[in-house]
Amino acid sequence: MALLARIKGPRDLDRLTAEQLEQLAAEIRTFLVESVARTGGHLGPNLGVVELTIALHRVFDSPRDRVLWDTGHQAYVHKLLTGRQDFAKLRTKGGLSGYPSRAESEHDVIENSHASTVLGWADGLAKANEVQGKDAHVAAVIGDGALTGGMAWEALNNIAEAQDRPLVIVVNDNERSYAPTIGGLANHLATLRTTEGYERFLARTKDLLDRTPVVGKPLYETLHGAKKGLKDFIAPQGMFEDLGIKYVGPIDGHDVTAVESALLRAKRFGGPVIVHCLTEKGRGYLPARKDEADQFHAVGVIHPDTGLPVAASGEDWTSVFGDEMVKLGQERADIVAITAAMLRPVGLKDFADEFPDRIYDVGIAEQHAAVSAAGLATGGLHPVVAVYATFLNRAFDQVLMDVALHKCGVTFVLDRAGVTGTDGASHNGMWDMSVLQVVPGLRIAAPRDADQVRAQLREAVDVDDAPTVVRYSKGAVGPAVPAVGRIGGMDVLRKPSADAGTSDRDADVLLVSVGALAPMCLEIADLLDKQGISATVVDPRWVKPVDEQLPALAERHRVVVTVEDNVRSGGVGSAVAQALRDAGVDLPLRDFGIPERFLDHASRKEVMAEIGLTAPDIARQVTGLVARLDGVPAAREQDSAPVRD
Amino acid sequence: MALLARIKGPRDLDRLTAEQLEQLAAEIRTFLVESVARTGGHLGPNLGVVELTIALHRVFDSPRDRVLWDTGHQAYVHKLLTGRQDFAKLRTKGGLSGYPSRAESEHDVIENSHASTVLGWADGLAKANEVQGKDAHVAAVIGDGALTGGMAWEALNNIAEAQDRPLVIVVNDNERSYAPTIGGLANHLATLRTTEGYERFLARTKDLLDRTPVVGKPLYETLHGAKKGLKDFIAPQGMFEDLGIKYVGPIDGHDVTAVESALLRAKRFGGPVIVHCLTEKGRGYLPARKDEADQFHAVGVIHPDTGLPVAASGEDWTSVFGDEMVKLGQERADIVAITAAMLRPVGLKDFADEFPDRIYDVGIAEQHAAVSAAGLATGGLHPVVAVYATFLNRAFDQVLMDVALHKCGVTFVLDRAGVTGTDGASHNGMWDMSVLQVVPGLRIAAPRDADQVRAQLREAVDVDDAPTVVRYSKGAVGPAVPAVGRIGGMDVLRKPSADAGTSDRDADVLLVSVGALAPMCLEIADLLDKQGISATVVDPRWVKPVDEQLPALAERHRVVVTVEDNVRSGGVGSAVAQALRDAGVDLPLRDFGIPERFLDHASRKEVMAEIGLTAPDIARQVTGLVARLDGVPAAREQDSAPVRD
Repeated sequence: MALLARIKGPRDLDRLTAEQLEQLAAEIRTFLVESVARTGGHLGPNLGVVELTIALHRVFDSPRDRVLWDTGHQAYVHKLLTGRQDFAKLRTKGGLSGYPSRAESEHDVIENSHASTVLGWADGLAKANEVQGKDAHVAAVIGDGALTGGMAWEALNNIAEAQDRPLVIVVNDNERSYAPTIGGLANHLATLRTTEGYERFLARTKDLLDRTPVVGKPLYETLHGAKKGLKDFIAPQGMFEDLGIKYVGPIDGHDVTAVESALLRAKRFGGPVIVHCLTEKGRGYLPARKDEADQFHAVGVIHPDTGLPVAASGEDWTSVFGDEMVKLGQERADIVAITAAMLRPVGLKDFADEFPDRIYDVGIAEQHAAVSAAGLATGGLHPVVAVYATFLNRAFDQVLMDVALHKCGVTFVLDRAGVTGTDGASHNGMWDMSVLQVVPGLRIAAPRDADQVRAQLREAVDVDDAPTVVRYSKGAVGPAVPAVGRIGGMDVLRKPSADAGTSDRDADVLLVSVGALAPMCLEIADLLDKQGISATVVDPRWVKPVDEQLPALAERHRVVVTVEDNVRSGGVGSAVAQALRDAGVDLPLRDFGIPERFLDHASRKEVMAEIGLTAPDIARQVTGLVARLDGVPAAREQDSAPVRD
Repeated sequence: MALLARIKGPRDLDRLTAEQLEQLAAEIRTFLVESVARTGGHLGPNLGVVELTIALHRVFDSPRDRVLWDTGHQAYVHKLLTGRQDFAKLRTKGGLSGYPSRAESEHDVIENSHASTVLGWADGLAKANEVQGKDAHVAAVIGDGALTGGMAWEALNNIAEAQDRPLVIVVNDNERSYAPTIGGLANHLATLRTTEGYERFLARTKDLLDRTPVVGKPLYETLHGAKKGLKDFIAPQGMFEDLGIKYVGPIDGHDVTAVESALLRAKRFGGPVIVHCLTEKGRGYLPARKDEADQFHAVGVIHPDTGLPVAASGEDWTSVFGDEMVKLGQERADIVAITAAMLRPVGLKDFADEFPDRIYDVGIAEQHAAVSAAGLATGGLHPVVAVYATFLNRAFDQVLMDVALHKCGVTFVLDRAGVTGTDGASHNGMWDMSVLQVVPGLRIAAPRDADQVRAQLREAVDVDDAPTVVRYSKGAVGPAVPAVGRIGGMDVLRKPSADAGTSDRDADVLLVSVGALAPMCLEIADLLDKQGISATVVDPRWVKPVDEQLPALAERHRVVVTVEDNVRSGGVGSAVAQALRDAGVDLPLRDFGIPERFLDHASRKEVMAEIGLTAPDIARQVTGLVARLDGVPAAREQDSAPVRD
């Protein structure tokens, strides 16, 4: 790592020769494979952008110029070149984030991991340069997959509006997002890619350069002067130029010199330019290249030589869902499934294999997933839309206005709901149970274990006149949590001890447990027991609407406590509180959940501890509240106030 | 109206001659102008689609085939041709909806008024036909303006994926949405439009047909056989064909025969086809054609000959905002404004005229409005994004992930918030104060009068490290509501009478008033007074976060009552309740607002009465609650339970 270790910032790249740049690229690849094998992380995407990132930082002067990354998981190389080479604690508490982070570096701008945003950011930053008369550049890197998102289109349309506002768009075209890119755009990019005359020309140019490294750069630029005319003749300019955006490409994205030259031309053009770079996800790492699924998009801890996982994974929430979907597909011909570029991660691969005519991968296009589902439902089918919980926010308006307003029977399955941890703020699925509360007719299931995933998915697809949601956590599913009783649609998970109640009271505390937090709620009840406080634990199973029998049950307790893996604002606790008010049940209630702030990356367990979402924390606070009701001075509750910002 | 009166359904169009179709079109135009002048409504768009709608219903067999309308306000002609000719009560309670309505007709499919959705619906319906082996067609009409929305792009990309799945897309190209269409797409459409050779050819064909009406149709079709080759040579196929979608056009959208012929060809093609129709908004009505602003996009009651409004309008919320924005623009060079194709309706016309370099119309692209605002803010400016409240739902993820996560100082101004009434379910701005509650750091102002709009807008643009929201109602702004005191950031609007309190209590009821409902809350307090119940009325001004001093103020009352023009689920009432719980203030609270359901079209006043959001209704319920607390049997509150679904 002789060269890499000497790169303290982008300007250290300036004086490297073409040969040294090649060596640097090789060192970076070795570093990435060895380091990410140890920590887990987004390996494939970063192996694909090594040369591209080097070229960007040679041509643009970050942070004065802005170098922007869409879906920031492709920014590891960028981190290495901007003074961050300690990857030992990548994505763990106190270590580097897996995404750009403004707290880490002035070279980082966009932190979130939701795709297709970069062109909008770039448009705004370029406009800000213009308004303020700043002589600075903006370069935005976006994958071909992310171009399928509607935000990219909206941005392109706006960027094309101002022909004299400089902006360089690098399309990092590896023919896939997580999965191969779909749709008309992919076909069009393929046409651009396979313009043989142009590619032969490119290859010849490159060969020439390889043989003449010293004069290579000026020679190449001279050639480009001639080539511009040639290219216009040979290569289809395509839809980008139809929109009015200058197109440069295709460029071999693993040829630093070629990319650099194209970027230089683009930078000097003085208006919006698309530089179309062809790259390989997983470039230079055989196990990734050979992986047909997603070319090591994101990996856990692996053995660096073989790429095989070090730890075997057990049954997880996703696979339980995937398994049940195949059964449902066999039983019902009207079940179709939709994924937004995440076929395998959301567990729909088996369904797709068995029912290839009933699976739709719409690309990174959650809006379209929801709206086309409304059409499918209106056409007589029952669509199951499986997305990560955090990404459903993209389709909020469509869930409300297209699916719910039209009373369409569409089931949304939200994977990775709640605190997910290591991917940082934007990957936590902590908003769904709040924002979806306003959607009329929509029902939300929060299954607590594998059996409930299966059962509630079946209940959900039986609803044909309203949207249904099934949301569950990330990772391994715990052991079954049996019900000991049933009230209305609610499972009673724990009854208070026989001597706890009175004629008009079951117990002190009614604990309302949401989804995977059932074991935690049972633990809370045990802890309360030790304080002499009796508790009933109930799992409503369907958390929206609030079960009609919940107020009457609540009334047989002194205090109601809700526990959810979701932001507190407007969440299940608030909905329960409102239902109690509406029923005239004015009992003290405490709602525990995720505070209203963005969560830093750390393990799920660490995050839960930090926000006080643990059994001991909650038990202590409930104990304080009960003590206050008993007339014990309020200090005890004050000492352990509910989690707030 | 001899012909129009005979059209009871689409099939009645089949036997009309070309001459009769022209006469029918003329009758429809007369009907629209006379009828909409009396009731108000979307005049311009419907005058533009008369021939197009006739042709669609001749070529497609609705409801077996699906004829779909984007932003359904262009469906008046469709209504006239599908058995609905009583427009006397258009957009009023009990009358026809201003949008398609499945309750009205089996010919209607999409009810909502949010733009750019139709292609997603069409994709879903076409897929449903395919899966079920149905021999039926789907035709979707979308404006050129709506094509600027990202949803349209996502759908086009998916539609292009299946070359053998029939779907006819009619681009109704009038060069504008509300305002002229912007961006690269508009420029591209303009190129297609002005292909002179092709247009001359079209015109000649039409002349020929006009002179030979009887043999016209078969002759035209024969010509088309030859023309197909010609067209491919003469007309630029453009980006649609780059995507893989067959392109037919441009077609004179006011020539029924030409449109019909193009639609027939498209229908027979057996795959996705775009039919590009050129139309004029306001066609055939001089006042509309001469209106440069929006060509009578939507009008109130007007005089049919002159097009002038019958009633003059006074100061409204929008103009107060627009006026203050100009002042802010003069004072601060860093203020820029963003509109999503609604420059005039949101009040930014004057700002745009005075600061043409600091206004951005991004098209029907709320996502881009929010994301580019994040970029502008990061670049050192303070963007004010003005949209209708209902449309912000389109940008929820971007407000959360791009603006809030990045601590960008962006101000969102939400016009038409709360119950708007006549435009029906999808135009009510009733979700914002709930869904935005989860956004960390975001602050929401709900000004109660014109003075507060000005003051709170200024407070909002002074926040440079978090998103701010200023939301206000539709229409005329009422008289100023003066404050009689101040507690923390809250205005006290009414103190209880001097003899109401005790040493540890100010009054019985603390009424928390939100925004424009201040006069109603004062009226509630008066009504309570007559029942011997004392009340304090407070306007928090900023409803998120909940004012830190609210719990202490609440504690000096027996009951807290919140009143908001927003859905109850997770709204301001829920946030206040949560703040009280977190402070250990366990008082009875009742939250009044909009129930969790979609609202039918009617006047605002009628809707408010129907959902019980009136002073007498609320006073009666609060009286019942206080009586119960006093030990009076619960029957009184039970009789008037809070509004629920």
